Amino acid sequence: MTALIEPRVLKGFRDFLPAAEIERRGLVERIEAVFRGFGYAPIDTPALEYTEILLGKGGGETEKQVYRFSDHGGRDVALRFDLTVPFARFAAEHRASLTFPFKRYHIAKVWRGENTQRGRYREFTQCDFDCIGSDGVAADFEILMMMKEALAAAGAGGLTIRLNHRGLFNRFLQTIGAAAKAVEILRAVDKLAKIGRDETLKLLAAELDQKRAELIVNYVETKGSWDETLDALATAAGGDNPDSERLRTLRGFMFDAGVQDVFVIDPSITRGLDYYTGIVFETFLDNMPSIGSVCSGGRYDNLSGLYSKEPLSGVGSSIGLDRLIAALEALGMAANRETYAELAVICVDEGQSGAYQRIAQKFRSEGIPTEVFFEAKKQGVQFALAEKKGVRWALIPAARLGQGGAKEAEDDTVTLRDLRTRRNIEALSVSAAIAFIRNQKILKEERICKDETGTRVSD
Amino acid sequence: MTALIEPRVLKGFRDFLPAAEIERRGLVERIEAVFRGFGYAPIDTPALEYTEILLGKGGGETEKQVYRFSDHGGRDVALRFDLTVPFARFAAEHRASLTFPFKRYHIAKVWRGENTQRGRYREFTQCDFDCIGSDGVAADFEILMMMKEALAAAGAGGLTIRLNHRGLFNRFLQTIGAAAKAVEILRAVDKLAKIGRDETLKLLAAELDQKRAELIVNYVETKGSWDETLDALATAAGGDNPDSERLRTLRGFMFDAGVQDVFVIDPSITRGLDYYTGIVFETFLDNMPSIGSVCSGGRYDNLSGLYSKEPLSGVGSSIGLDRLIAALEALGMAANRETYAELAVICVDEGQSGAYQRIAQKFRSEGIPTEVFFEAKKQGVQFALAEKKGVRWALIPAARLGQGGAKEAEDDTVTLRDLRTRRNIEALSVSAAIAFIRNQKILKEERICKDETGTRVSD
Repeated sequence: MTALIEPRVLKGFRDFLPAAEIERRGLVERIEAVFRGFGYAPIDTPALEYTEILLGKGGGETEKQVYRFSDHGGRDVALRFDLTVPFARFAAEHRASLTFPFKRYHIAKVWRGENTQRGRYREFTQCDFDCIGSDGVAADFEILMMMKEALAAAGAGGLTIRLNHRGLFNRFLQTIGAAAKAVEILRAVDKLAKIGRDETLKLLAAELDQKRAELIVNYVETKGSWDETLDALATAAGGDNPDSERLRTLRGFMFDAGVQDVFVIDPSITRGLDYYTGIVFETFLDNMPSIGSVCSGGRYDNLSGLYSKEPLSGVGSSIGLDRLIAALEALGMAANRETYAELAVICVDEGQSGAYQRIAQKFRSEGIPTEVFFEAKKQGVQFALAEKKGVRWALIPAARLGQGGAKEAEDDTVTLRDLRTRRNIEALSVSAAIAFIRNQKILKEERICKDETGTRVSD
Repeated sequence: MTALIEPRVLKGFRDFLPAAEIERRGLVERIEAVFRGFGYAPIDTPALEYTEILLGKGGGETEKQVYRFSDHGGRDVALRFDLTVPFARFAAEHRASLTFPFKRYHIAKVWRGENTQRGRYREFTQCDFDCIGSDGVAADFEILMMMKEALAAAGAGGLTIRLNHRGLFNRFLQTIGAAAKAVEILRAVDKLAKIGRDETLKLLAAELDQKRAELIVNYVETKGSWDETLDALATAAGGDNPDSERLRTLRGFMFDAGVQDVFVIDPSITRGLDYYTGIVFETFLDNMPSIGSVCSGGRYDNLSGLYSKEPLSGVGSSIGLDRLIAALEALGMAANRETYAELAVICVDEGQSGAYQRIAQKFRSEGIPTEVFFEAKKQGVQFALAEKKGVRWALIPAARLGQGGAKEAEDDTVTLRDLRTRRNIEALSVSAAIAFIRNQKILKEERICKDETGTRVSD
């Protein structure tokens, strides 16, 4: 006999067993429904691309992490490490075929050979949505609305979206004569939450001087109402200007749509280095702010600069799915089931397996997912198996069932068992059993709706 | 200025633009709904695995095609080339955590560096469903039922599932004293449809002799009703035996479930070499048999033999998504739209973009996907844009709209335009417009239902 190979996955990679995958799919489907509801269309791009496409001019950390190799034809290829670079390439390549403004989402795996000791995965899912080809503030607002709706659909409770404008910050730096050091300043400001005020001041003073360091920290720590903060930021930038006007328009849209309470203006939000040029934003869960931003992005003015001379501006955002799932789990809001089935057909007689499938098909066609059990084990064992999987109902067919087409099945008699209450409802026709489960589902949905409005507590 | 990088994908790889991706997603979602309806749960595994896991003892063609490289830690890794091998590894690794019989589906990309001149892709999606840990004929039947239902849901019209039993064929080979050459014989028989009777006879005669070559070709060309064929095959295998009995039981299940017409027994179906041990099957579209099998599989008795001493038997099938999409397109049955949006909110005044989103949100929350337009171009231009994307309805908001929460929005007056008939319905409240579109959708669904029963032709 040949030696066995140890079954194992690579470090930083994961299998998803049914409960985890059902949870992940459910989250993605709820988010995707929101994207589709806004008229955003899905696209997909290859996992593998030319390395020169993905790395462009090359870039420190990324280059070290990318999975890169030579393919059968000797091409220098790599696995995508994000969805932004492939989208930039996609937009440049297909520009003539796209309808602008082009609104797309892309939910797919990406790969980075990161240090797994920091709790990072080497394979993970990104969830990006962007609107390109529109410079308007209406596009900025739409992306913000989508973030609010998608995270509400995710089911993690209340949230706060913090936003800022990179152009406004740049104007302020110009006003204090520090624009030349913008990159270093952004890098230092980005660390404020982590290293604290004093250390940030030291970093800034080393680049500039104590006075301007304090001006910058004061700027990013500006507090107050939206209007007060915006007035202060505009003043620091030398008075009202197109960027502060844009934020005022955006604020007006929020009131017009009745969503003003979710959004906070926060000058400490800067989002990294040189990609964004307009608004930037991060999203925090009210129930778990410590987990960090679960949805971030901003406006950029030249998406495809590496591949095309024609600039393409846009605004986009990305949901941190893994982080969001971790939050849902920590908050006890994750579903926990191994199957979509709501009903299990108990096996009384293995020779009736064909008839069981015929009966099950009637439930399935009425929107009730139904698993058929194959082995005529003791009923208690079968009930326990169904319960373990998270199935709510069991159907115990009569010993003798009709044969053939749909007509005879009407005469089949079944017993329906509620596995939660352990109560049997006997001598039902199949259609009565379907009606019973459907009614229970409607009642449950009504209960959930009432929960959400706070009227009544669920069972 | 830096030189531009040419935006392009690797040969054999594809971008999916919205229309193609919406079509692909729609197909996958319809199929997935069937899998879930049968109580099959999704799983996922890493794209990248240890090469020794994927290649096992190594295997000719596959080894040459696999994308294999050394990762940052010097590990010999490869991209998965199918979903069966990762599933075998998964089942061995997680055996203790799984509930048996374990019913799973897995829809994911795989990669093979194939010769693209044969019209093959190097990145494509596989769509596998298996039930492992049950030896019963009920499991075989369930997989066959799922194939029928999944392909019906795919919407490619009538289909025929052809099946055979590998054990029965092996018994026949033993009866004629040709079992020792089983591998070579299977390889020759597999080519019958391609190279014809005479060439197959030559191949077989070279391995055996003319007489047995003819016996084999006659065997695989056995024709007649299910019962006649099965009787003939059993006789050729030396009389009734557990394999022929199993096929009789399976046939009984088909009648019990009323699905007997879809299935044909066909001894020419053999499905490659040494993996399958029980039933094997292929599926052909009645409208397009020439495209070949769109769903194939069979029963195996030792899934995880490379990784575990405990045998794990099962039965499974795989849908050829790319082939199915090609068939739907060729049959003119593919959807062709760039968006999920059913309604476009026309931009009359860019300063009202916040109010437009508030109105759009009311449609979205009633299940009507709604895109908001950003620029106050001429209405005709906006109508044309919506039509181009495949949007059915346009909403023209009044010049003045309410501000703020849900209450004021009730007073908004809108005009609804049917972009298909170019007819306007004026002076509607938002809720009346929602009701109007919903009613039209219900009417449309009823029309589609009537089509399927053949009562009435759709518009």
